Amino acid sequence: MTKQQIQAEIIAKKSYLCVGLDTDIDNIPKEFLQEPDPIFSFNKTIIDATLPYAVAYKINTAFYEAQGLKGWAAMEKTVNYLPINVFKIADAKRGDIGNTSAQYAKAFFETMPFDAITVSPYMGSDSLLPFYKYKDKWVIILGLTSNVGAADFELQKMGDQYLFEKIIATTSKYGNENNTMYVVGATQTNYLTLAKAQCPNHFLLVPGVGFQGGNLTDVSTHCINQNSGVLVNISRAIIYSSQTKENLAKEAAAIAQQYQLEMEAFIK
Amino acid sequence: MTKQQIQAEIIAKKSYLCVGLDTDIDNIPKEFLQEPDPIFSFNKTIIDATLPYAVAYKINTAFYEAQGLKGWAAMEKTVNYLPINVFKIADAKRGDIGNTSAQYAKAFFETMPFDAITVSPYMGSDSLLPFYKYKDKWVIILGLTSNVGAADFELQKMGDQYLFEKIIATTSKYGNENNTMYVVGATQTNYLTLAKAQCPNHFLLVPGVGFQGGNLTDVSTHCINQNSGVLVNISRAIIYSSQTKENLAKEAAAIAQQYQLEMEAFIK
Repeated sequence: MTKQQIQAEIIAKKSYLCVGLDTDIDNIPKEFLQEPDPIFSFNKTIIDATLPYAVAYKINTAFYEAQGLKGWAAMEKTVNYLPINVFKIADAKRGDIGNTSAQYAKAFFETMPFDAITVSPYMGSDSLLPFYKYKDKWVIILGLTSNVGAADFELQKMGDQYLFEKIIATTSKYGNENNTMYVVGATQTNYLTLAKAQCPNHFLLVPGVGFQGGNLTDVSTHCINQNSGVLVNISRAIIYSSQTKENLAKEAAAIAQQYQLEMEAFIK
Repeated sequence: MTKQQIQAEIIAKKSYLCVGLDTDIDNIPKEFLQEPDPIFSFNKTIIDATLPYAVAYKINTAFYEAQGLKGWAAMEKTVNYLPINVFKIADAKRGDIGNTSAQYAKAFFETMPFDAITVSPYMGSDSLLPFYKYKDKWVIILGLTSNVGAADFELQKMGDQYLFEKIIATTSKYGNENNTMYVVGATQTNYLTLAKAQCPNHFLLVPGVGFQGGNLTDVSTHCINQNSGVLVNISRAIIYSSQTKENLAKEAAAIAQQYQLEMEAFIK
């Protein structure tokens, strides 16, 4: 998916909502457990309900791997179910030496039809470069994350920059604004400006709005400009909006629409 | 597996060899492709051949994920095939916010019977702590890796320390020498002493000997002391030692034994 296609979808749906499919089998309505593939069935309900309001879906691989083979199968089914015009993110936080990263790229860009994968930058250039070998695929690099542990290293100074600034400055040379995004957590609003200063024309993927306490207005004000934008990920607030299967589609759609309406004001 | 059990195996086999099962279906002898599960069949051949000389096996998850569902199934079969007295490492380099890392821990420590998982420290404390909730399981944290990209961040200074030193110093407080190891690449022998100084009583997992050019004598001299030791991972040099199925077991065993004999001299 190209940057132009992503921007066109944002304008068409008046939304930059990304729905996070962090599907935990222990937290979904019990009725799904009687179905042959509870995780996929739950995901399908969420996708069908939120599709008018969302431009992207983010599959958090951990929740699928925890279920073993049937979890991996549900992930494959889910990504294949997503329509062509939504941006499909594997939130996998992978990264290894070059020959191994090439295998991760194959897993998510060839074996499965994801448009993007989140990657950890710790191991440097050759751990990320294999992901760039695919046309119209995206590398989403961890910049500043939304968890408390971000203070341990990401927010420590390396020279006169925070580590996350240095990471963005360095890695933004591996690719460009047409194949690279950065994860910057919304719970650290003070730092959004610093992150954006390092990559003014790159899209950001922003988690932490909703359940983790980030503020949508702050994020939108800091991240959207003429050349780039933001994908705001909401997971738990949408997918766990109802404890019954009967109400889930309605509740999930209502919350997704509520975010979409808030976002509409920030789209030029 | 406890530290005492690992040390007992090292003494019994006079070896600290870890065999890396980075099984790339495009590189295995063609005869395996006619079998129902080529990856598992290949791994079984390697395991049976090297078991007298190896105390640990490291499954590189990327190579299995690249093959989709059948790859994940081959990984599960492989880890379940490994006997109880070998140390089973998932080389997965995972790490995410707490609730997500908890799912990765479940995937590798409950759904599959791995003894250890490699993790990326970038996101800090709460991204690693969920892995520590399992008795007799190990967290193997990336310190200094063996790739050229290590120069980009790991070998940059944070204050008066290299980032990898700071990472080891900080994360060694999350756990202890009985549940934590560090990855330190053998291709950076100059830095082994610096890494070891930060965690004198922790085991190191050392990749990069063999194919990547690291030196076994250097590694052994720098990493083994009275309280701790090292697991030296060899992958390509052993698993791709023959291009025919007929010779594979013999060649893999011979090379593993050669490493074991070199290691014997360093075991007190």
